Amino acid sequence: MEMSGLITLTTDFGTRDPYAGIMKGTILTANPQARIIDITHEILKHDITNASFTLGQAYEHFPQGTVHVGVVDPEVGEARKNIAILTEHYIFVGPDNGIFTMVLSREKALDIREIKNPPFVLDKISNTFHGRDVFSPCSAYLSAGRNFSEVGPEMKNMRHLKYPKVSQGGNNLKGEVVAIDSFGNMITNISEHTLRSFMGKKKVEIYFATERFTSIMHYYNDVPPKTVLVLIGSSGYLEISMNGESAEDYFMTSVGSPVTIRKY
Amino acid sequence: MEMSGLITLTTDFGTRDPYAGIMKGTILTANPQARIIDITHEILKHDITNASFTLGQAYEHFPQGTVHVGVVDPEVGEARKNIAILTEHYIFVGPDNGIFTMVLSREKALDIREIKNPPFVLDKISNTFHGRDVFSPCSAYLSAGRNFSEVGPEMKNMRHLKYPKVSQGGNNLKGEVVAIDSFGNMITNISEHTLRSFMGKKKVEIYFATERFTSIMHYYNDVPPKTVLVLIGSSGYLEISMNGESAEDYFMTSVGSPVTIRKY
Amino acid sequence: MEMSGLITLTTDFGTRDPYAGIMKGTILTANPQARIIDITHEILKHDITNASFTLGQAYEHFPQGTVHVGVVDPEVGEARKNIAILTEHYIFVGPDNGIFTMVLSREKALDIREIKNPPFVLDKISNTFHGRDVFSPCSAYLSAGRNFSEVGPEMKNMRHLKYPKVSQGGNNLKGEVVAIDSFGNMITNISEHTLRSFMGKKKVEIYFATERFTSIMHYYNDVPPKTVLVLIGSSGYLEISMNGESAEDYFMTSVGSPVTIRKY
Repeated sequence: MEMSGLITLTTDFGTRDPYAGIMKGTILTANPQARIIDITHEILKHDITNASFTLGQAYEHFPQGTVHVGVVDPEVGEARKNIAILTEHYIFVGPDNGIFTMVLSREKALDIREIKNPPFVLDKISNTFHGRDVFSPCSAYLSAGRNFSEVGPEMKNMRHLKYPKVSQGGNNLKGEVVAIDSFGNMITNISEHTLRSFMGKKKVEIYFATERFTSIMHYYNDVPPKTVLVLIGSSGYLEISMNGESAEDYFMTSVGSPVTIRKY
Repeated sequence: MEMSGLITLTTDFGTRDPYAGIMKGTILTANPQARIIDITHEILKHDITNASFTLGQAYEHFPQGTVHVGVVDPEVGEARKNIAILTEHYIFVGPDNGIFTMVLSREKALDIREIKNPPFVLDKISNTFHGRDVFSPCSAYLSAGRNFSEVGPEMKNMRHLKYPKVSQGGNNLKGEVVAIDSFGNMITNISEHTLRSFMGKKKVEIYFATERFTSIMHYYNDVPPKTVLVLIGSSGYLEISMNGESAEDYFMTSVGSPVTIRKY
Repeated sequence: MEMSGLITLTTDFGTRDPYAGIMKGTILTANPQARIIDITHEILKHDITNASFTLGQAYEHFPQGTVHVGVVDPEVGEARKNIAILTEHYIFVGPDNGIFTMVLSREKALDIREIKNPPFVLDKISNTFHGRDVFSPCSAYLSAGRNFSEVGPEMKNMRHLKYPKVSQGGNNLKGEVVAIDSFGNMITNISEHTLRSFMGKKKVEIYFATERFTSIMHYYNDVPPKTVLVLIGSSGYLEISMNGESAEDYFMTSVGSPVTIRKY
């Protein structure tokens, strides 16, 4: 794979502390030509599921040969391994805690390595900041074209998160809200593909909280201002939204809330 | 115009969701050499006026040949057009909703195009994320030097916001607060130029809320700590400020609050 | 010193206003090849001590020849000077208000200049935004390799902040919390080196608020979830933390809280 020289960062470090900046300095010390793009540093603290979802939405919009680093690492230390994953188009670097679960539901892992060997780790590794001491040098050297197999010993298994699955019974399809964005759009785990297969040529009604929706809209302003609606969002999943306002504030519900689709 | 290779982003996406990162990935896929600078992703949600003001403050500090992208797009979809605007020094890319009003009060539009033609739009355009599917590829290819006229058909008119105007009557000049920054400085629409023309060689008193100011200061610490003052801010507009504290918190007023200047 | 072409920014500008973006545009106008890395723009407003600590944590992780810009500048104007500091590995640019105190406890200043000469300052300097008008062009031209001595006249003295010192008496070592990160880790001014010298081969007890700790942990999850602990943090200082939660929220204390270590 030809490397793009790009490294993306997805962490829960926030932007107030210098931790993200320190990672960038460490990367640029190892590979002065690296170009670093923030996906976000505002993953909810310690929320690996949120990070997995965010990475799953973002990674494929980057050029092939990009190294994606994910650091949400509540168990930092010896309790879990540090891993690098090679797929057909990308490399992923982070803790082995399930942070790449959503990515790996779509990208096949061709080679998985435990990050062990210098210079992919710094000479002195702290106990609490592997973002700086392991993931930064590892991503830097890989983005510069160092051989993937030099990273460390091969691994056979990785940890995976359990994602809520869509279930189907008779004329009902049941899913749930898996993420809420800063606009208050409530993103479900029901993909457009799943929905279309389920519907066939029938009509559907969508039930969420106390609302019943009888059509799937195209645009937010297909409905009047401050009106709730459902549509297929930009990531290809069913979303519950509100025109010009936050559906999250309107419904006062959260991740995990059930959605039911009935066909007739 | 020789392109600088720089693209700036001004959006209301926030930095918690991956949307800004996805735009950057999409830009870099189209133009791997592009260099992307965030102006801000924290425009108040759906606040086109706030975005217009922010772009108006920032754009001219960038090298000539920079592409400025603005995405605050509550009407995303078919209700409004996607436009690119060529001026003498810059290109502006965003929805046709007035977001470039303040810029265009100072930069003459030489050519306006509706963004229609591939590769300036992705093959598949979502209904809700034109920042990714239209403005990213468009800005990327333009920053790489593609001909402006290839973007799409020429447009004759654009939408403009109505900005509050400064009014003059007898010895009074009336303006208002148009923005408040994170330090709590209250920026008015009264420019230094307008103020100096109005004053001539006379003295002025400035009335805001229950305060009366009899002089225009140079520095915040021309007055004691925690004291309110007026000065000409860094963008060349009259500001109401407080030394070391937030004037916004002190006055508990907001955008739209009137300011009156009396000469004598 | 060979310049890296990198410039870092540490400010209290926040990310909502265009000020940080305007600095970047101004830098890139002066040096189109500069690469700019944000350390943070979320220093607490006007908190020079916080900025000094943040810069002290971050600067040495960047390649040699990097220009570090710090702008927390409540006295912006003629009351304080604008300075550039050359050390063996880096250049520092900012107001002379003590913002580089922590850096200069570790890096020897080889040459200090008042920033006075064009093009290191813009032709027209505003009264309130030296980040744009002085520190941006100065850092840009220095990062491009312009001679340090051209910046302006030599200075003999700088302002320094007073940092709380660690004190030792008999079997007690007393320090205090000097920073709290966004995870709620409470970072003290007691370095690992100071602690090890004090301890020798003895045991220690650590007193903080109503807690007594009898061992120094290696990892956050050396203790059960939601349990407080002490460890040596990634910057090499004693930290009071909580596994998976915020120690700051648990203790409801703040910067300045005392820590006592007793050996026996």
